[in-house]
Amino acid sequence: MSNIFGRIFRVTTFGESHGEAMGCVIDGCPAGLEISANDIETELALRRPGSAHGSRDEEDIPEILSGVFEGKTLGSPIAVIVKNKNHNSGDYDKLKDIYRPGHADFTWQAKYARRDHRGGGRSSGRETLGRVASGAVAKKLLSRYGITITALSLTAPNIKELHAEGDSAGGVISCKVTGVPPGLGEPVFDKLDARLSAAIISIGACKGIEFGAGFAAADMKGSENNDQPGENGGYATNNSGGILGGISTGQDILFKAAFKPTPSISKKQKAYDKNGNIQEIEIHGRHDTCIVPRAVVVVESMTALVLADFLLLSRVSRV
Amino acid sequence: MSNIFGRIFRVTTFGESHGEAMGCVIDGCPAGLEISANDIETELALRRPGSAHGSRDEEDIPEILSGVFEGKTLGSPIAVIVKNKNHNSGDYDKLKDIYRPGHADFTWQAKYARRDHRGGGRSSGRETLGRVASGAVAKKLLSRYGITITALSLTAPNIKELHAEGDSAGGVISCKVTGVPPGLGEPVFDKLDARLSAAIISIGACKGIEFGAGFAAADMKGSENNDQPGENGGYATNNSGGILGGISTGQDILFKAAFKPTPSISKKQKAYDKNGNIQEIEIHGRHDTCIVPRAVVVVESMTALVLADFLLLSRVSRV
Amino acid sequence: MSNIFGRIFRVTTFGESHGEAMGCVIDGCPAGLEISANDIETELALRRPGSAHGSRDEEDIPEILSGVFEGKTLGSPIAVIVKNKNHNSGDYDKLKDIYRPGHADFTWQAKYARRDHRGGGRSSGRETLGRVASGAVAKKLLSRYGITITALSLTAPNIKELHAEGDSAGGVISCKVTGVPPGLGEPVFDKLDARLSAAIISIGACKGIEFGAGFAAADMKGSENNDQPGENGGYATNNSGGILGGISTGQDILFKAAFKPTPSISKKQKAYDKNGNIQEIEIHGRHDTCIVPRAVVVVESMTALVLADFLLLSRVSRV
Amino acid sequence: MSNIFGRIFRVTTFGESHGEAMGCVIDGCPAGLEISANDIETELALRRPGSAHGSRDEEDIPEILSGVFEGKTLGSPIAVIVKNKNHNSGDYDKLKDIYRPGHADFTWQAKYARRDHRGGGRSSGRETLGRVASGAVAKKLLSRYGITITALSLTAPNIKELHAEGDSAGGVISCKVTGVPPGLGEPVFDKLDARLSAAIISIGACKGIEFGAGFAAADMKGSENNDQPGENGGYATNNSGGILGGISTGQDILFKAAFKPTPSISKKQKAYDKNGNIQEIEIHGRHDTCIVPRAVVVVESMTALVLADFLLLSRVSRV
Repeated sequence: MSNIFGRIFRVTTFGESHGEAMGCVIDGCPAGLEISANDIETELALRRPGSAHGSRDEEDIPEILSGVFEGKTLGSPIAVIVKNKNHNSGDYDKLKDIYRPGHADFTWQAKYARRDHRGGGRSSGRETLGRVASGAVAKKLLSRYGITITALSLTAPNIKELHAEGDSAGGVISCKVTGVPPGLGEPVFDKLDARLSAAIISIGACKGIEFGAGFAAADMKGSENNDQPGENGGYATNNSGGILGGISTGQDILFKAAFKPTPSISKKQKAYDKNGNIQEIEIHGRHDTCIVPRAVVVVESMTALVLADFLLLSRVSRV
Repeated sequence: MSNIFGRIFRVTTFGESHGEAMGCVIDGCPAGLEISANDIETELALRRPGSAHGSRDEEDIPEILSGVFEGKTLGSPIAVIVKNKNHNSGDYDKLKDIYRPGHADFTWQAKYARRDHRGGGRSSGRETLGRVASGAVAKKLLSRYGITITALSLTAPNIKELHAEGDSAGGVISCKVTGVPPGLGEPVFDKLDARLSAAIISIGACKGIEFGAGFAAADMKGSENNDQPGENGGYATNNSGGILGGISTGQDILFKAAFKPTPSISKKQKAYDKNGNIQEIEIHGRHDTCIVPRAVVVVESMTALVLADFLLLSRVSRV
Repeated sequence: MSNIFGRIFRVTTFGESHGEAMGCVIDGCPAGLEISANDIETELALRRPGSAHGSRDEEDIPEILSGVFEGKTLGSPIAVIVKNKNHNSGDYDKLKDIYRPGHADFTWQAKYARRDHRGGGRSSGRETLGRVASGAVAKKLLSRYGITITALSLTAPNIKELHAEGDSAGGVISCKVTGVPPGLGEPVFDKLDARLSAAIISIGACKGIEFGAGFAAADMKGSENNDQPGENGGYATNNSGGILGGISTGQDILFKAAFKPTPSISKKQKAYDKNGNIQEIEIHGRHDTCIVPRAVVVVESMTALVLADFLLLSRVSRV
Repeated sequence: MSNIFGRIFRVTTFGESHGEAMGCVIDGCPAGLEISANDIETELALRRPGSAHGSRDEEDIPEILSGVFEGKTLGSPIAVIVKNKNHNSGDYDKLKDIYRPGHADFTWQAKYARRDHRGGGRSSGRETLGRVASGAVAKKLLSRYGITITALSLTAPNIKELHAEGDSAGGVISCKVTGVPPGLGEPVFDKLDARLSAAIISIGACKGIEFGAGFAAADMKGSENNDQPGENGGYATNNSGGILGGISTGQDILFKAAFKPTPSISKKQKAYDKNGNIQEIEIHGRHDTCIVPRAVVVVESMTALVLADFLLLSRVSRV
């Protein structure tokens, strides 16, 4: 029931992996922003699989249905859809009544008393498509104000070997945002880091996030952790990750996010079925051995959604 | 502008450290819950300073102004205030125009073009009082449904030594929630872990959070990380931290949060003043050498607010 | 920026009159509700023009893109689109720089500094399509609980005569909701009548609403207006319109809404152009001489959205 | 559960008639606005009873607990409380188990399975105190931008006579807002008139609202109702009430609201008790024979809350 994100720049996403289409509606994008389907397609391409190692290869062509006229946003909602083409739902039929380990099968069933079992339905990684499509618009808005978001994967597992073993890998993504003016973020509950946390942890498979020095800060002394003035202006360090009291400092925003390994593996596993019995399963089909490279643009997109929202909200901080 | 938290069980908090009072208003607490000022006072006592090492000692007496009648909630908003007694605002006058390292002085000034400099104003740790007061009500609600939240500090720095040095320490708090039924959490943007992240990271000084295996999961293989059926029922591991696809599994919810060291230290530091000049400062007054022990109940309270909200939301998942 | 409606049963609508498509996304519909494209199409048919007197004749075929699996809702967002077919945008080019009297041309331009002038863009009556599509789902949900909504037009202007004159008519729609249990509505700001007001007045051309005795109640004495017990059980009158203190009483909900005449008329009018000069204009093209008959289903739909939301919210009123 | 109003300028109100205190918390008021307890007290005085005819006479002294420093708003939440002094709760004990006609007694009981019966509890007219206190701040903000709100009662019933009869009267309040720039209001669901409707109808006893020509517009022809350019600039008429397509035109905003007669009357009435039996009752105690004069400032306050919110939201309409 919570497929809406943001307070001013509000995004609704929708779509099941093997349904008709994925998409998003952006409500609250200011009027006058240049945007095209091409801007969105470019971003969507970044979440497509780069290798032949098992992942689903599908060209994602976005259609803008509303909210853009003569190349610019109108201030009305921007609806974008991407049709699902590569339906091979039969693959999933044999796992229909089994709760795959590490997946949301059991929890969705427990919550809704039904689910679309085909490819994970709404809990599929394909759900991120609506995030990236709307993130593309947010990035475009931010770029007008000189704000740039760059994420990258910090880990390089040996994927070929894992694939051969029928196993999978996770990884860590770091993200840096430059050009952020001081003053973004809304204390006390929508602090910039609080909202970024929710945004990033809401991405499937993300299990942790830390800002600036992060967990290492817990072991520092105050005199080590406090960012003090530098020799040549600015600050000597950025342990705060560009955020103090939940508000941007003007330094780069820095955070890292941990992603667990892909739960779908072809290696033999034990799993509960819907009757509570234990079954042995092997999961075959199109799965990424490591989703981290594809998650990079998703991290950027969610970061963009948060910053676009706060950039607009910052206009109402003062009389 | 974001002092409201939650979707059904919605809490508004208010108050500056050296203003008249701190408090909260809870909108959306169901009718019929037994609650007393004593329940709240008990929780507030847990965030009071336990040692003589510098922290502010103030007895916090909550008054319930509305929403409770004949010992039970009415369904109308529950307002709670705690008066601030121990005003010694003069302590802060000499730091009025200096931006203390690691504090929110500069960022609040940048955002609002003014601030209450006395004790950090709204960015003071005293702001957590409204969180704990409302968390007490949320805990009471959860306890009716058999849900228990227990946080604890994992680190034990040598506080006496640090205090003598004029320095400070941070730490890590772990939190466990038991008795959570499967099905809590609202995909895709208000996943249980996403909302818990925002809740916990919104606590001042918190710099990171991880669920279950957390950052370590990034280095595991899928076959290691996936929680599989145990020998004697249930699951052999809890790497998921009790959450899959953003929805509770029924296992214990487990997370850890990192807190940076108290930024106020008496050791000499360099800092910018409001004119951009660098000054040498020593911060004296009532400060905790380590706020982590006092933050434990705040972590529990924020966790309770999230779970109370999701418990109520879970009533509308199905026809 | 406010194309999202509701708190639990939340609807986002989108689309410009001459854009690619109209549509809606429903977030928060409980899982397990039977729904088909046919259910939606039936309702959409009710807002199609019934006569040949000038109105746009377009068959509206809804496609459900997500959220429904094996004939039932999944609990995930339900996206519905209806493609726009009958583009004849050239009709509007000559009015591009003129602000038509009684229309939103000037105000949208003033707000957004741009607009889609073709057929009113987002301010077209065609915008109601997303309301009716989502209202169809809300009605289906309500029908499971025995709640029925019936609106009807109270006025019957001589449309042929007006059409010949090049003029237009308004009217009043009354609405009755039966089967509403006591207890729906959320004091103090989301009272049932408050939310219904917002819902109905948000329909283009609606200029007023009254509940039960409405404006006439202002001239009654308390002893006349108070609904007292009837001879044979229940109440002797329903001046309250089924709502007291913003909460349903269990009696029928009754309200009336006033709609102004269609602002597009072929009769000669004066209007400002974008340079502030006065021009004489005649508006030709496909316009309803009276939109009231087509607005009936829109009133029902918005009423359904409000009641569906409150029906779900009523599940969390008590411990 | 819905005691929060607004999207940016968000107000939470609380308090039962015979509880400890009434109050409000304003979240999202921009920093830098001059405000004092005196500003609020002046407005509160306008909702005090003006005559000796039965109404409750209580001096309402507001205390600002937070959010204001050195005479200006900080950008943090502004909490205001007013203590309840004149408790004479015993008056209400004999009506404890009877549902007074025209009151919310039955509906609150049906919804929450309990209520504070003393003076109507949360459904008392005294609840408007939080609206007026926050409205005072909104008015102050609007006055900086040249926006003025003036409401007045259009009806003058013979109150002495009615009081003698043990009966009561309702009335109509008209409201005019001047100085509103074009562009306020958020289509399609938060249109200016839609939000004003919800705001005004949410006031207890309000049964209807109409904008500009209102219900009379339903009987006009388009050529009569459309506001066309005037001889000397501007417009010849203001049938739109200053709102087109849900957005302010720059003309004065005009609306009228109908209030039902006070339901508490000393004349004999029939009423249901909690067991469903019919009782004869006479309601004595402190009640206004006509609440309309006291509701005038409440109408202004709610109007101010809506406009303050939209004024701030208008800052984010364009890139």
